[in-house]
Amino acid sequence: MDNTNSSSTFSVSVLLLRILTLLFLLIALIIIAISEYTEITYFGTTKRKFDHVQAYRYMFSTIVVGFAYNLLQLAFSIFTMVSRKRALSGDGGYLFDFYGDKIMSYLLLSGSAAGFGFSAELLRVVPSNPFLEKANASAGLLLVGFIFNAIASIFTSFALPKKPN
Amino acid sequence: MDNTNSSSTFSVSVLLLRILTLLFLLIALIIIAISEYTEITYFGTTKRKFDHVQAYRYMFSTIVVGFAYNLLQLAFSIFTMVSRKRALSGDGGYLFDFYGDKIMSYLLLSGSAAGFGFSAELLRVVPSNPFLEKANASAGLLLVGFIFNAIASIFTSFALPKKPN
Repeated sequence: MDNTNSSSTFSVSVLLLRILTLLFLLIALIIIAISEYTEITYFGTTKRKFDHVQAYRYMFSTIVVGFAYNLLQLAFSIFTMVSRKRALSGDGGYLFDFYGDKIMSYLLLSGSAAGFGFSAELLRVVPSNPFLEKANASAGLLLVGFIFNAIASIFTSFALPKKPN
Repeated sequence: MDNTNSSSTFSVSVLLLRILTLLFLLIALIIIAISEYTEITYFGTTKRKFDHVQAYRYMFSTIVVGFAYNLLQLAFSIFTMVSRKRALSGDGGYLFDFYGDKIMSYLLLSGSAAGFGFSAELLRVVPSNPFLEKANASAGLLLVGFIFNAIASIFTSFALPKKPN
C-alpha cells in the first residue's frame, strides 16, 4: 500500500470528523444557551436559564470543553497539512491524540447522558415543555458530536505507536 | 525486553481489571435492585422499584450488559492463561477486545451519567431520600466499574494489530 496516500486518507478523515464534531457541538451549545423557562414565584415571574438545572450545567460544561479541544485539534491538523509535519513530533503527538480523543469522547457522552437522564424522566411528568424539549434536542446533538469524536478516537487508537510486547 | 514476561504482565493486569469491574458492577446491581420507595395513591400505598424511573431502568440495563461482557472476557482470559493460547486466534481477538472494551466502557459511563443526571437534581428537591441515595450510590459504583473498564480499554488499544499506514 502507498504510505503517503494511506496516511493522507487518515488525516483527511480525522479532519472531517473534527469539523463535524465542532459543528454539532456548536449547535448544541447555541440551543442550550438560548433555552429558558419562566418560574412563577411569590414576587412575580422570573426567567430562568439552563444553569438552574445541575444536569444541564454539567452538559453545557462538557460541550464547551469538547469544543475547545476539537478546535485545538483542528488547528493542529491544519498546521500538519500545510507544513507537512506534525505539530507535536514523535510518539508524543500520537499519544496526545489517543488520550485526548478517548477522554473527550467520554466527557461528551457523560454530558449527553446526564442531560437525557434528567429530561427523559421530566418529559413524562410535564410533556411538551419547550424548555425540556430544547434541552433534550441539545443533548441529542451532543450525542451526535460524541459519535463523531468516538470515531476519531478509533482512528487515533489505530495510529498508536506499538509498545514492545 | 523479555517478550513472554511483558505479555504475561499485560494478561494479568487486564485480568485484574476485569475482576475489579465485575466486583463493582455486581455491588451496583444489588444496590439498585433492592432499592425501593413507597408511593402514596388514592387506594393506599404501593412499593415501587427502580424500574419506575427511566434513567434507573437504563442504568440497570447497562450494568447487566456490562457484567455479562466482562464475565465473558474473564472466561476468555482464564482460557488463555490455562491453555496458553488465545480463545480467539489471530487479529480478530485483539479487534474484539478493542471494540468490546471501547463500546462497553461507553455504555457503562452513559448508564452512570444518566443515573447521576436524574438523581443529582432530584436530591436537591428531596434531600436525604433513601431511594435516591441508594440509586446515587449505585451510579457511583457503576462509575468506578466504568473506570476499570476504561483502563482495560487503554490496554487493549495498545495491543491492537498495526494497520498498514
